[in-house]
Amino acid sequence: MKIGVAFTMALFFALGNVAVADEGMWTFDHFPSKAVGTKYGFAPSQAWLDHIRSSALRIAGGCSASFISPHGLVMTNHHCAVDCEDALSTAQNNLVQSGFYAKTQADETKCPGFEIDQLTSITNVTKEMLAATKGLSGAAITTASRAENAKLQKACATDSSIRCDVVSLYHGGVYDVYKYNRFRDVRLVFAPEFAVAQFGGDPDNFNFPRFDFDIALLRVYGNGKPSDTPDYLRWSKNGSQPGDPVFVAGNPGSTQRELTVAQLEYLRDVALPKELASLSELRGLLEQYQTLGVEQQRTTNDELFFVENDYKVVVGQLQALDDPALFATLESKEHTLRARVARQRALQVQYGDAWTKLAALQTLRERLGTAEAYKSGGIFDQSTAYFGIAQTLVRLPVEKAKPNAQRLPEFSDSALVTLPEELFDPRPIYPAVEQLNLAFALDTLRREFGPDDPFVRDVLQGRSPADAAQYLVANTKLGDVSVRKKLYDGGEPAVQASDDAFIQLASRIDAQARGVQKQYEDAVTNPSRQFSESIAKARFAIDGTSVYPDATFTLRLSYGAVAGFSDSHGVIPPFTTIGGLFNHASNADPYVLPQSWLAAKSSLDPQTPMNLSTTNDIIGGNSGSPLMDKNGDVVGLIFDGNIHSLGGAFGYDPRLNRSVALDSRAIIAGLTHVYHADRIVTEILGSP
Amino acid sequence: MKIGVAFTMALFFALGNVAVADEGMWTFDHFPSKAVGTKYGFAPSQAWLDHIRSSALRIAGGCSASFISPHGLVMTNHHCAVDCEDALSTAQNNLVQSGFYAKTQADETKCPGFEIDQLTSITNVTKEMLAATKGLSGAAITTASRAENAKLQKACATDSSIRCDVVSLYHGGVYDVYKYNRFRDVRLVFAPEFAVAQFGGDPDNFNFPRFDFDIALLRVYGNGKPSDTPDYLRWSKNGSQPGDPVFVAGNPGSTQRELTVAQLEYLRDVALPKELASLSELRGLLEQYQTLGVEQQRTTNDELFFVENDYKVVVGQLQALDDPALFATLESKEHTLRARVARQRALQVQYGDAWTKLAALQTLRERLGTAEAYKSGGIFDQSTAYFGIAQTLVRLPVEKAKPNAQRLPEFSDSALVTLPEELFDPRPIYPAVEQLNLAFALDTLRREFGPDDPFVRDVLQGRSPADAAQYLVANTKLGDVSVRKKLYDGGEPAVQASDDAFIQLASRIDAQARGVQKQYEDAVTNPSRQFSESIAKARFAIDGTSVYPDATFTLRLSYGAVAGFSDSHGVIPPFTTIGGLFNHASNADPYVLPQSWLAAKSSLDPQTPMNLSTTNDIIGGNSGSPLMDKNGDVVGLIFDGNIHSLGGAFGYDPRLNRSVALDSRAIIAGLTHVYHADRIVTEILGSP
Repeated sequence: MKIGVAFTMALFFALGNVAVADEGMWTFDHFPSKAVGTKYGFAPSQAWLDHIRSSALRIAGGCSASFISPHGLVMTNHHCAVDCEDALSTAQNNLVQSGFYAKTQADETKCPGFEIDQLTSITNVTKEMLAATKGLSGAAITTASRAENAKLQKACATDSSIRCDVVSLYHGGVYDVYKYNRFRDVRLVFAPEFAVAQFGGDPDNFNFPRFDFDIALLRVYGNGKPSDTPDYLRWSKNGSQPGDPVFVAGNPGSTQRELTVAQLEYLRDVALPKELASLSELRGLLEQYQTLGVEQQRTTNDELFFVENDYKVVVGQLQALDDPALFATLESKEHTLRARVARQRALQVQYGDAWTKLAALQTLRERLGTAEAYKSGGIFDQSTAYFGIAQTLVRLPVEKAKPNAQRLPEFSDSALVTLPEELFDPRPIYPAVEQLNLAFALDTLRREFGPDDPFVRDVLQGRSPADAAQYLVANTKLGDVSVRKKLYDGGEPAVQASDDAFIQLASRIDAQARGVQKQYEDAVTNPSRQFSESIAKARFAIDGTSVYPDATFTLRLSYGAVAGFSDSHGVIPPFTTIGGLFNHASNADPYVLPQSWLAAKSSLDPQTPMNLSTTNDIIGGNSGSPLMDKNGDVVGLIFDGNIHSLGGAFGYDPRLNRSVALDSRAIIAGLTHVYHADRIVTEILGSP
Repeated sequence: MKIGVAFTMALFFALGNVAVADEGMWTFDHFPSKAVGTKYGFAPSQAWLDHIRSSALRIAGGCSASFISPHGLVMTNHHCAVDCEDALSTAQNNLVQSGFYAKTQADETKCPGFEIDQLTSITNVTKEMLAATKGLSGAAITTASRAENAKLQKACATDSSIRCDVVSLYHGGVYDVYKYNRFRDVRLVFAPEFAVAQFGGDPDNFNFPRFDFDIALLRVYGNGKPSDTPDYLRWSKNGSQPGDPVFVAGNPGSTQRELTVAQLEYLRDVALPKELASLSELRGLLEQYQTLGVEQQRTTNDELFFVENDYKVVVGQLQALDDPALFATLESKEHTLRARVARQRALQVQYGDAWTKLAALQTLRERLGTAEAYKSGGIFDQSTAYFGIAQTLVRLPVEKAKPNAQRLPEFSDSALVTLPEELFDPRPIYPAVEQLNLAFALDTLRREFGPDDPFVRDVLQGRSPADAAQYLVANTKLGDVSVRKKLYDGGEPAVQASDDAFIQLASRIDAQARGVQKQYEDAVTNPSRQFSESIAKARFAIDGTSVYPDATFTLRLSYGAVAGFSDSHGVIPPFTTIGGLFNHASNADPYVLPQSWLAAKSSLDPQTPMNLSTTNDIIGGNSGSPLMDKNGDVVGLIFDGNIHSLGGAFGYDPRLNRSVALDSRAIIAGLTHVYHADRIVTEILGSP
């Protein structure tokens, strides 16, 4: 299997022509319509592209979605809305388990903390961003680029219904401002039971054949009423057939296809093994915690799902990078680019040494990066919501007192608009779960730096990691939104007078946290960016925008076709059926079908396509993306990639790399016969 | 730090002369006395070597030890005897926590299942072993070599007080029979509290400076009385000084210094990352289980300790193999050997292609090795004692019916002598702990092969891994020794009639388990051995026994000197003191000193050396080895290596690689002033 990947990757890169394969996560302003037309006999027009761009959505936090009715109805994955179901659940009423359907519009329920963004324009600001940092070095780069960023954002985001992000593409080769409509009143319309949405659970994740009903429906509201959304995707009742051209519009999170070999080696030898060990241990902690009971399961299911998901991603990426043939291909790709640069004297003089300089930074990155990761507050922030809240409250008065251009980015004027909403997020925080995660974080902190490290001493204050986590969680009231509000309103005096354990922790380590962060920025982030920009500019001088940039969790369009694949398990056809779902069901978790599906079995046509695989080039963040035919109509809903797609972080293999979607026909069949969601089916299919 | 290692390794290998550094885990029949004499002015005589060999001991299961009195008193590490303390503990009386001291000889308490072996002779049987498999190929090699092994063992082990092992050294270059006196009545004499034995716990493990009182004393008995042990080590009251030559006699478990680059790549890219993830997850499971209470801690402390220990070992090994400079050195070492072979036509013709052939086997090793690891029963055996018992009971009647030469090695006539003792081991088995471990094993099994795999289906029988583990543990009585005895005595009919869930599982999968094991042996183990032997013979033809073989958990002697080291943390002197122990104590676990030490503080001289570091070349398995001066007197007790010693699996770095020992002076001070173990101190120091 691994040899197969390597072989075809090598073949592909050797051909050196991206249009041969369905490779690429293209920006909407540089989509290769001509190449697609040549291959599939359909070249998307500007109007087609604009329509798709306006119908495609991003869910803040890491997912994709789309409008599928003119009344703000949003389609995404179940696992993208599970956070909302969790927030609306209680110990007595577990929506994740039971599913949810709003029989009437009045039953549609607000998802706390949800934000959905619709991309409305892309403006190139490369000139401005490069001018701002021109001739600067070291810390001055951070300051100047933050200031320019804050300025551009503020000029663009004229009110709180608009979000503007400065996006760095091609690792600094291009800077664009992405402008979004922000929808902040998002309500839950429909979600199936977890058991059928995640049918097959972790064992089937990243696998195909597959049988998941991984869908959720949301609706965006404005002024208490469903928003008008004239740009939305029509529904294809007939779905797709093998070989049909299909498109995916979504927000792939992150790829590493432009990294240098030295950066890939750092990932392979340092970052990924460490992440694998950390995820595995956290997985064990959560699995064992879940044996305590139903409520412990309910409050950690979401976290465990993402830990297991990330675990598979890391394993897949490590396997790809450990494949000597694949790595040799990546090395030769870099070698070719450097040789092309070397042949042009001007390029060589300006950019030729960037690779060597970037390689030299990796040792520093390892050493300072560990300090940055653990001591800037990040490790606490990731492990417990309490810390992020506390750090925001501690830093807010300090940052607010500075001019906009000099603040940390999360306190810029644009960011301050939405900060109260994030800070007062009413979603429940479960102390026992926070304690579990924090104890793990504190233990890894002590393992990393030893008990005698001054920062470790300041954090633990003579306690063991387990005791310190217990103490901190027992002595905070930040789970209570009204307490946060009081501290927010009271400003610096209220924060300084607070005896809350997390406020005190965040204050105690603030100087050190800022220090390690600055040290890392000055010594690693800024020089890295500078050298990456040099490489990007060199590549640009040769390729221009005829290639696509690495994924950045911004909107991209991918083209491909409905297709299965062959690997060591044999020939895998592109479609599974609803009948296959019932065949794979058993009494063993995670293959237990919910009662609703068992009851509806006789009314469902077993031949209805359930899931399908396509050649589209996607990656994590694309979850919830619509799968569309050449009319732009919905033929499916992306929810996963196959196991071979995980190596896609580093390169696309046309023979094995597949995205996995829920078929549009299964969606209608399920909504109709299992959930009797007639008002929604009518809305989706439009007037008869 | 890593760069330092690589640099000195490179320097060292470049010099190519082992006597320059204190490298080597030497067998007693090929110790380089002359080289030691040249370097340290003391060349051990044959009498000196024989005395040390007879005083040094092995604890079956993975540790080293030594006789330190003529009356069978044995010194080893606390962590080597913790299994005995566990077995003697109850929920009400936790000996691991409280420690143990037998005030009179009558209080010395038997350690269930313990065996201590004393090496009495080494006989070269290379000719016999090679003759037995000459001209054979495939499965015939296994059969013939097992038969010869069983024959040699039987001829040597004339009664049950003798153990004989055929040991393969230099990866098949030399075969020796190691003959041991077996001591099977082993009693606990003294063990300190866990808190001081493992002071600093996991954070300090594999670190130096260190402050551990990691000692336990046992005594071997014969016919109910302490055994006479005329060969024993005398005690040095004065200990050692920096620069003093010192020796370590012990049983290093396993090194990989003779592996080919392809085999090392397999370790680096496949085996070790997988092991790291697995250990991390198990660590998380155990850590979370321990939060349930004191009894849950007591019943899993031992397992967690070893999991954490192995985790650090794997991390250290991965760091070493991921160091490009070190790996380049290992590659160049192989390159040099191959070039030397190529220069001698006869060697080249006979052995020259072994490296290529061994490399080609690694892909197969990955594929078949996974099946073998998971389906031969190994994964169950490791996760729960119930399975091992069940498999033994199921296979015993079948194997016993075959001629000795054709049996699985664990049922050879020699093995059958001790089998009842192992099978009826009365140590308690804790069902909840078995269930935790088994659920994890079953889950990883299903992850690896998927729920539709026939073997997985046979094991789970429609249950989820968690449910299957619960079912199996709830439906077995194999924890009860009398049940095992009945099944043992009842033979095949009793086993076949049993409704015990583990007996049924072991029966159900027996054919498949034997099948995958045989497939792996035929396709990987045997050819690997053949090619490794070829390489060993080629190396032998050039070097002979002037180099030492990879570690094999058999007795070795290492020489070196008392020395600190310098690394990124600065200059680390070789000695710590008892005062340092008190300085490092706090109220935070694992730095909480037991009451006994706090109470004795004023009677202890803070200047007394506590732990020390030496240049001896050791590895896991050496735990419990005596550290001796040139008189052969005890100056310390090896209990660990520093963090740099973990890369020692692949090569020894004279500048950084250090072993860590408890000083003989601290032992006497602790026994005298903290534990008032006067009768033992008198016995150790001899008549005044």
